[in-house]
Amino acid sequence: MGIIGPGLIGSTLLDQLRDQASVLKEEFNIDLRVLGIISSKSMLLSEAGIDLARWRELRDEKGEVANLDKFVHHVHGNHFIPNTAIVDCTSDSAIAAHYNGWLRKGIHVVTPNKKANSGPLDQYLSLRALQRQSYTHYFYEATVGAGLPIISTLRGLLETGDRILQIEGIFSGTLSYIFNNFKDGRPFSEVVGEAKEAGYTEPDPRDDLSGMDVARKVIILARESGLKLELSDIPVESLVPEPLRGCASAQEFMQQLPKFDQELTKKQEEAEKAGEVLRYVGVVDVTYQKGTVELRRYKKDHPFAHLSGSDNIIAFTTRRYQNQPLIVRGPGAGAQVTAGGIFCDILRLASYLGAPS
Amino acid sequence: MGIIGPGLIGSTLLDQLRDQASVLKEEFNIDLRVLGIISSKSMLLSEAGIDLARWRELRDEKGEVANLDKFVHHVHGNHFIPNTAIVDCTSDSAIAAHYNGWLRKGIHVVTPNKKANSGPLDQYLSLRALQRQSYTHYFYEATVGAGLPIISTLRGLLETGDRILQIEGIFSGTLSYIFNNFKDGRPFSEVVGEAKEAGYTEPDPRDDLSGMDVARKVIILARESGLKLELSDIPVESLVPEPLRGCASAQEFMQQLPKFDQELTKKQEEAEKAGEVLRYVGVVDVTYQKGTVELRRYKKDHPFAHLSGSDNIIAFTTRRYQNQPLIVRGPGAGAQVTAGGIFCDILRLASYLGAPS
Ligand SMILES: NC(=O)c1ccc[n+]([C@@H]2O[C@H](COP(=O)([O-])OP(=O)(O)OC[C@H]3O[C@@H](n4cnc5c(N)ncnc54)[C@H](OP(=O)(O)O)[C@@H]3O)[C@@H](O)[C@H]2O)c1
Ligand SMILES: NC(=O)c1ccc[n+]([C@@H]2O[C@H](COP(=O)([O-])OP(=O)(O)OC[C@H]3O[C@@H](n4cnc5c(N)ncnc54)[C@H](OP(=O)(O)O)[C@@H]3O)[C@@H](O)[C@H]2O)c1
Repeated sequence: MGIIGPGLIGSTLLDQLRDQASVLKEEFNIDLRVLGIISSKSMLLSEAGIDLARWRELRDEKGEVANLDKFVHHVHGNHFIPNTAIVDCTSDSAIAAHYNGWLRKGIHVVTPNKKANSGPLDQYLSLRALQRQSYTHYFYEATVGAGLPIISTLRGLLETGDRILQIEGIFSGTLSYIFNNFKDGRPFSEVVGEAKEAGYTEPDPRDDLSGMDVARKVIILARESGLKLELSDIPVESLVPEPLRGCASAQEFMQQLPKFDQELTKKQEEAEKAGEVLRYVGVVDVTYQKGTVELRRYKKDHPFAHLSGSDNIIAFTTRRYQNQPLIVRGPGAGAQVTAGGIFCDILRLASYLGAPS
Repeated sequence: MGIIGPGLIGSTLLDQLRDQASVLKEEFNIDLRVLGIISSKSMLLSEAGIDLARWRELRDEKGEVANLDKFVHHVHGNHFIPNTAIVDCTSDSAIAAHYNGWLRKGIHVVTPNKKANSGPLDQYLSLRALQRQSYTHYFYEATVGAGLPIISTLRGLLETGDRILQIEGIFSGTLSYIFNNFKDGRPFSEVVGEAKEAGYTEPDPRDDLSGMDVARKVIILARESGLKLELSDIPVESLVPEPLRGCASAQEFMQQLPKFDQELTKKQEEAEKAGEVLRYVGVVDVTYQKGTVELRRYKKDHPFAHLSGSDNIIAFTTRRYQNQPLIVRGPGAGAQVTAGGIFCDILRLASYLGAPS
């Protein structure tokens, strides 16, 4: 394997790989080796496998200037190692643009990076076609719901002939937290501030409130379900008030936000009066072949009404799960669970390549 | 493949295989063939693969007297077919006793039958050891929660080095239905009668109320989590009143049950007063290395409190999912979803044996 992007998620993955390596070898006869780690500036290469207990020191000692071509050539060029995978832990679309070429070369790709699957449709379709024709695998469980079993569950339903009718979910931990706590007369801006303080939001909360990250997840699930949609086909209800989209800084945005509390307070009170709650959801409607990202109201006995913390929740309504959907719920972000989701994909790949189960 | 037990689940699986065969072949290059179908009385064998649109007629025309040895020899003896799997859709422990021998021969086993995994510990351990040493696979997703992704989720967590702390769940659709509706002063026996009328219970509701089926699921998850427990190590709180355990018929049992309503009504009212609900749960406590099946009380904002219909719900609390568990919820019984779970295992097997994903 080669790991691109030893940031929050990438370095947590490296730690998990380090901790689990001996168990995998002894119990499952799986020998995973990391032959290279590359960030945007530097890279560390090794012939036999990097000692994951010391990769940071080794990088300081023996690291070289980052060179992606050389990195890929090194990772894939070792003839004693039968299978090569590249794990992309960046959020860079420039890296995602390489998947096609890598898969063509027989390099498997595993990633939590949403850019390829939510990018231009033709590129996505060619990736999927490539992967189906060849025996080269492309896994991206952690792009939606982090470590929660979302993509694998959806694939299992589709491949066994179930028909998806609708996928509806709260896909943003930040917006889950915000709407779970937006009640009892609290102003919206206050709850956003609290979420920011607690470290739940991006440095600029507009990156969460714009809904674009949710839209990317919706498009990934929509395409997985067979819909041929572009990101621009998804109407997204932004929670960033129009006049604040141009604010120069996050700080200025937060200062101005209280001025716009009234509209959401009104919606919240109307929902409350009807015995309902507001939730910011992404929806894939397979029947009508569309996706949406918007604020919806749910009855208080609906599964979405009783979330806590920053949980994600995803409900699959299908021909088999028609009256009662199949629901997965839990933390959909965070270093440990996200790295765990990527690690699951790596082991799935190992099984597909012939490791015992 | 050979299919044992074309009953409710087995025949639904055969229908799903029939409907999906051409998609699997064209899109995924997976060629699944059913070389034999056997019930307790008769069997149908075919060299090239049974026409699944006509297996019932074919069985009437060409069926022979059931002979399991001959069946297995036929299914596994075709040298043009590289991989053989037996799918056990019975609930027979005599069939489960064969898994060991089949795995030794290199025959993969897929099953919704709980008997092997909840049977004697030494037999279970030898099955698992066999499967880890060899490249022969043994899958049983549908033994817990039917088509819900329970076993695969648990395995993913364990193999990637997460540590399971507790698995807690409502594993019986029948008991889920009963406790979701046991409120507003209704007598327990009335709710049981309603569930029986609606076809949610076994013909004799004591088979559900005894909790033994839940205990089998608990032991399967406990063992999967590494606990070395026997079924008899699990204390089970039976909801069948002691004096009614010996009733000769289900009818007599249902007639007598109202006499015992008082005790549960009291418990329900106490829970209600404390703002809680009663739920019949199975728990695997990995920290204390034990399992239990019992009636517990949950606060009204707990995920178990807001179930509807006959949903199962399973919460995994782990080192990574410590503050907020990973939760899977949905129908945990029924022909379509259960067969779908088995079918998923069959495709997982195909992927592990080298089919493209
Ligand atoms: N955080 C979560 O909870 C979560 C959940 C689900 C999915 N994800 C996804 O996981 C991915 C990683 O997230 P993160 O939180 O770990 O981000 P991060 O901490 O910012 O790490 C990104 C890493 O990628 C490297 N990188 C960026 N561009 C690169 C390039 N062109 N070539 C090589 N390396 C490059 C960065 O290196 P430098 O430091 O040298 O720039 C850094 O090491 C993202 O796609 C994110 O959407 C995250
Ligand atoms: N029903 C559900 O919702 C559900 C959910 C999860 C798991 N499961 C599991 O799925 C399995 C099948 O359930 P089901 O509802 O389909 O049961 P079923 O309708 O009673 O079918 C059982 C089938 O097994 C056959 N059989 C029994 N003993 C046999 C033997 N020794 N040799 C060959 N065939 C034998 C029966 O054949 P004859 O008719 O000839 O006796 C019948 O075809 C059970 O293990 C059950 O626990 C069921």
